[in-house]
Amino acid sequence: MATTPDKKTQVLDFTTYKATHKLKVLAARPFDLTTEGNLTPERINRYCASAVDFKLLYGTERIDDATMNALFELAEEAQVHDKMQKMQAGEVLNVIQGYPSENRSVLHTATRDFFEQPQTSEIARAAAHDAKAEVLKLKDFIDKLDRDGTFTDLIMIGIGGSDLGPRAHYFALQHLLKKNRNVRFICNLDPDDTASAMLGIDLKKALVVVVSKTGTTLETLSNEMFVKRYFTEAKLKPEEHFVTVSLKGSPLDDRSKYLECFYMWDWIGGRYSTTSMVGGVMLSFAFGFNVFWEFLRGANAMDKAVLNPDPKQNLSLIAALLGIWNRTFLHYPSLAIIPYSQALWRYTAHIQQLDMESNGKHIDKHGNVVTFDTGPILWGEAGTNSQHSFFQMIHQGTTVVPLEFVGFKESQMQKDNVYNGTTSQQKLLSNLFAQMLGLATGQTNENPNKVFEGNRPSHLLLGKQLTPHALGALLSFFEHKIAFQGFIWNINSFDQEGVQLGKVLANKIIGCFAAQNEQLKETQLYPLGDALLRQLDTF
Amino acid sequence: MATTPDKKTQVLDFTTYKATHKLKVLAARPFDLTTEGNLTPERINRYCASAVDFKLLYGTERIDDATMNALFELAEEAQVHDKMQKMQAGEVLNVIQGYPSENRSVLHTATRDFFEQPQTSEIARAAAHDAKAEVLKLKDFIDKLDRDGTFTDLIMIGIGGSDLGPRAHYFALQHLLKKNRNVRFICNLDPDDTASAMLGIDLKKALVVVVSKTGTTLETLSNEMFVKRYFTEAKLKPEEHFVTVSLKGSPLDDRSKYLECFYMWDWIGGRYSTTSMVGGVMLSFAFGFNVFWEFLRGANAMDKAVLNPDPKQNLSLIAALLGIWNRTFLHYPSLAIIPYSQALWRYTAHIQQLDMESNGKHIDKHGNVVTFDTGPILWGEAGTNSQHSFFQMIHQGTTVVPLEFVGFKESQMQKDNVYNGTTSQQKLLSNLFAQMLGLATGQTNENPNKVFEGNRPSHLLLGKQLTPHALGALLSFFEHKIAFQGFIWNINSFDQEGVQLGKVLANKIIGCFAAQNEQLKETQLYPLGDALLRQLDTF
Repeated sequence: MATTPDKKTQVLDFTTYKATHKLKVLAARPFDLTTEGNLTPERINRYCASAVDFKLLYGTERIDDATMNALFELAEEAQVHDKMQKMQAGEVLNVIQGYPSENRSVLHTATRDFFEQPQTSEIARAAAHDAKAEVLKLKDFIDKLDRDGTFTDLIMIGIGGSDLGPRAHYFALQHLLKKNRNVRFICNLDPDDTASAMLGIDLKKALVVVVSKTGTTLETLSNEMFVKRYFTEAKLKPEEHFVTVSLKGSPLDDRSKYLECFYMWDWIGGRYSTTSMVGGVMLSFAFGFNVFWEFLRGANAMDKAVLNPDPKQNLSLIAALLGIWNRTFLHYPSLAIIPYSQALWRYTAHIQQLDMESNGKHIDKHGNVVTFDTGPILWGEAGTNSQHSFFQMIHQGTTVVPLEFVGFKESQMQKDNVYNGTTSQQKLLSNLFAQMLGLATGQTNENPNKVFEGNRPSHLLLGKQLTPHALGALLSFFEHKIAFQGFIWNINSFDQEGVQLGKVLANKIIGCFAAQNEQLKETQLYPLGDALLRQLDTF
Repeated sequence: MATTPDKKTQVLDFTTYKATHKLKVLAARPFDLTTEGNLTPERINRYCASAVDFKLLYGTERIDDATMNALFELAEEAQVHDKMQKMQAGEVLNVIQGYPSENRSVLHTATRDFFEQPQTSEIARAAAHDAKAEVLKLKDFIDKLDRDGTFTDLIMIGIGGSDLGPRAHYFALQHLLKKNRNVRFICNLDPDDTASAMLGIDLKKALVVVVSKTGTTLETLSNEMFVKRYFTEAKLKPEEHFVTVSLKGSPLDDRSKYLECFYMWDWIGGRYSTTSMVGGVMLSFAFGFNVFWEFLRGANAMDKAVLNPDPKQNLSLIAALLGIWNRTFLHYPSLAIIPYSQALWRYTAHIQQLDMESNGKHIDKHGNVVTFDTGPILWGEAGTNSQHSFFQMIHQGTTVVPLEFVGFKESQMQKDNVYNGTTSQQKLLSNLFAQMLGLATGQTNENPNKVFEGNRPSHLLLGKQLTPHALGALLSFFEHKIAFQGFIWNINSFDQEGVQLGKVLANKIIGCFAAQNEQLKETQLYPLGDALLRQLDTF
């Protein structure tokens, strides 16, 4: 269906790399984890890499040295080290060659490049300079709030990248919530979302943060107007309560209407914006500016670590390669991310957007339709909860689901209870380790219902403790894993054309409703939309 | 790997039905939704069924009359109507023939069979009688709490079926929360889950509900002990604050230790227990007994509706057949459930367990390894939020994801705002309809990045309003959809052997930790577990 440009570029890409051919051969007979003596303590120690206080343990994947060498060769052929350097230096990587596209740098790393060994290119330095100015503006703003004590509640209005990341990170650090500070989120067009978020709130003490990169997001503007009505009906002035985060010059950038306007730039994608003011305003309000600063420091540390030219200590790259092995060569359609940490209970929802919106693509960077599988269905819930939910299917279903576990040696709050000789934290880790091993080895049995096939691959990202610094490193780990996969598949991980069709059709149907509201019954604006509207009439 | 019994049963099953062969042929050329003139207003009206104030609109699936007729024939060959009658009458359907298995009735429908035309079999009547006695006990208990005002907070401790269903239903009705009533949930072994749930709670006014069918669930018992410590340290008596829900005679059935003990029975699976006391105690405390009663009435109404022998008005059956068409014949590996209702934002997590733990199976009811795909990866998040997250991949990724939408004509709280001529509710529905149509028809374009392949199937369960009654009907709809699929695939949807291996291995690793705690460093209890434990030492 897609048209190919006449001047079709004849460069090497994923389908023509030597390593791709090697890996296809290796995939016919992947390492068998169920064979007695194959999964050993030595293997667990052997397939382990470390960076920024995290370890990646991947001995429970279906790989051996031959596979890993071919994967590292794939990374080299795709020049991922070079591309990562270029990305962080600000080269225009958000592009489809030969077609109109966003044509932008991809510089979310600049929003935290304030620490050791900053990028030296002019564009990256300028971006980090602008980002730092916003961080300092935020610090002053929060310092003033802290002094004045004007606001106790923050209502954050955003959706997608302006909601999922900030919200997941809020839950991840919720134990650090400052006294007399509360946060509520509004994202959905569903009016019940706004109506329930506004229940029982003391508007006089409420700060509202409206976040939309372009300042034109339908959900966010509708909800802003809805929330503003609460303030005007209470005879309060919205301009004394509302702040915004958006592009400079957007409809939301207006100091006559807003108490403060924070900026982002077109070199940050929404889903990569948690370390910008999109996450910064709310996280600093809730936990204090210093927590946000430590979070940025952690993200920056992993940004530097993924520039390591040694692929064997590059956690994001190894995870990216394992993902490509499972998805493109072993043909597993999904990836489940299972954090054994209740604080990360909404974290997978953020990584789901980050990954699926970045790599759920059908054309490569030359505009050719890809002939292999790109980004997987990414899903998951926290453990141990999920063991009591969908793990039945993971162990014994007819479709193999690779898993990415996340775990920590220590709990966040360090409050624990010894029961039957072990702490809850030890029991938590025991369950995590048990899943990795059981999924890999399986189990034979006389009773077919007690047979576990095994060879269900997983790996574990293991950290010491989920501090703000570790959370920053974790976010950067996933961001760069996804970027590395895009580099190798040669797709543009930084646009999202796939959301446009729905917006266009939704506006047509909103037109049908508007016509109905004005009693123009026979508009025939959009017959399919009208047919669905009429289905509502018969309730 | 699985052994087959010598006396292999030679009955007709999924692979040998005539309809299966027909459907395989039809699947080679499924209905094309992208061809101009194929998706019409007439088609939308034609593929529509109604029951209990819900409509199922499925014109945007890849089906035509020939496919639907073959699917209905499949249902008939599998005798689903007969099996559903037997299930609700209490026949032992939780069984694997020829092997040790749970050997139980499947009677969650009895927990709400108190209304019109109750089941008449002796076993179903006895079950409903016992269930009703617990409901009345609950009513007295809640009436007394309401009179005395002793408790303002409820802490619910449970996991899996004792957490996901109740929690999802709590959020679904949260706008009805009674004044001075709060609910907190604890599920995870992660000690941070308990520690954060207990922050700032007034223990004197706290009721704790401990829910575990067997009374032996590791997470729940650990968390119960942990929470008890808070009470004893505050010099409060746990037996004046703790109630339980479990099997009669379980370790939790002890009135000397607990204020009250509510019962469930071995004919209810954990994931099917929301309408029993597992959901009942918390939901009645939060919203009032009458809300719980209306919820039961709604579930019962759909229980009766799925007994309709006319398959064309049986919503659960049609959805089950569409699911089998997409999963087993068109080979789509997953199903996304997308409720366009913020109140249902955790509902998919419940249906995820319900479906994947029920139908994520690799053997049939004779113990034979199945040769076709059973239960899919089930996942999803609420719309419109998910449009700004993973819908990029749904529209343009390389793996097709069928969708099950849920939507309502009216909002719950009926508070709304007109912006640009339409309400938020109208905009919400417009987005829902737009996704169904856009995914089906796709879009051509000169720019390959703006091409949408289309033919991405979906259907919509549309209700009038998400009341307690509708929520009950919705739950029953999904429960029976899953049961019908199990009947057709001939698998046992009611056991969960796949969770056992993890439990066994976890206990071995807990043993490694216990030995370490007692400084028995060289126990060699489980070398693989020890290897993972040692990885923790190097942080």
